[in-house]
Amino acid sequence: MPTSIDSLTAEIRAFRDARDWKQFHSPKELAVAITAEAGELLQHFVWQSPEQSELRVRDRKEALSSEMADIAILLFEMADNCGIDLALAIRTKLARNEERYPVDKARGSNKKYNEL
Amino acid sequence: MPTSIDSLTAEIRAFRDARDWKQFHSPKELAVAITAEAGELLQHFVWQSPEQSELRVRDRKEALSSEMADIAILLFEMADNCGIDLALAIRTKLARNEERYPVDKARGSNKKYNEL
Amino acid sequence: MPTSIDSLTAEIRAFRDARDWKQFHSPKELAVAITAEAGELLQHFVWQSPEQSELRVRDRKEALSSEMADIAILLFEMADNCGIDLALAIRTKLARNEERYPVDKARGSNKKYNEL
Amino acid sequence: MPTSIDSLTAEIRAFRDARDWKQFHSPKELAVAITAEAGELLQHFVWQSPEQSELRVRDRKEALSSEMADIAILLFEMADNCGIDLALAIRTKLARNEERYPVDKARGSNKKYNEL
Repeated sequence: MPTSIDSLTAEIRAFRDARDWKQFHSPKELAVAITAEAGELLQHFVWQSPEQSELRVRDRKEALSSEMADIAILLFEMADNCGIDLALAIRTKLARNEERYPVDKARGSNKKYNEL
Repeated sequence: MPTSIDSLTAEIRAFRDARDWKQFHSPKELAVAITAEAGELLQHFVWQSPEQSELRVRDRKEALSSEMADIAILLFEMADNCGIDLALAIRTKLARNEERYPVDKARGSNKKYNEL
Repeated sequence: MPTSIDSLTAEIRAFRDARDWKQFHSPKELAVAITAEAGELLQHFVWQSPEQSELRVRDRKEALSSEMADIAILLFEMADNCGIDLALAIRTKLARNEERYPVDKARGSNKKYNEL
Repeated sequence: MPTSIDSLTAEIRAFRDARDWKQFHSPKELAVAITAEAGELLQHFVWQSPEQSELRVRDRKEALSSEMADIAILLFEMADNCGIDLALAIRTKLARNEERYPVDKARGSNKKYNEL
């Protein structure tokens, strides 16, 4: 399937290895880069209201798409380097959140699980 | 395919909608949450050398896996809400980086494209 | 004056040097630590509305005070290590922002200077 | 004293109030802005070694000075809005860290207090 995390990760790995960049990509450096890219994504929304942020998505779709791709590329590579199956990790987390946030208690609430 | 971004996104959407949480998940709030989760991931590596960070992955694999899942879940939902095809965005970015970082110039270098 | 940046920086430097920690505190590592601590501060407000965030300050004043101190300690040390006079840097930035955000155009607006 | 946190905070407050910006500066929004600015500071050091980061400070002193000022301005305003005495918070944190990191155990170590 073209959109599987595995096939995208293989493309990311090929890109990196053609440039011999694995030497710079320790888990720490990847976490640093992910956080810096998350900061760039956030920068688009500073001081904006949630409603204004919807408009911003319409106006800056390409830029936001590019920031989000940066985070995804680094995250997929990091999971791969760490021997973590990201799809499995996502499903494990969703299952844990099913327990932490039971529908009847969490519905319509923005509280954290330890405050519900 | 079980690991496609699309099928995982459908699971994330179902989780969110069962709790009626879309009202809290504007693009801005998702960017805020992604950045906060990236900060949690980074926290594991503060003051560590790149080499120490490899060991840390071995010792804290489950915790790191959980932090990375948090980022992925939020990122997949954000792309979905913004009408962005994340797999396409990743491939578009890789293609752009192929141009920005030609193999013969970028090989073995940690410089940014505008410094190569 | 007890609250001058200089005297606080001297205390921070003494704390660090007693532990021989300068070896770990390159500009990069300090920037990493500042960002990780900013993420911890932000964590308190994820999914909260601006109004809820006011209440949170009342409920978690000590914790927030501690997170903000962490950022300040690292920032003051980083400025010191980089040979940057932070008080001067603040005043230089305020003067630049006076030009970028003239009162008559910026009053009551949350737009960036390049959008005014 | 010209470099006291209090006098700088008064200048920051005057700048903000002349523009009627307090309405946008809830604790949450200030934490968001601080994190986004920390991300900008971090961006300068992504993929760099600690040693390279020293050189970068020499080459980009003005830009780094401006990023650090942004963080300080927002942090001083946030402390002020939250009724937190930042100088006191810094000293309280240093005192707590004196206990968490006793000199004889912490000297020359980059371990966290709960790992010492």
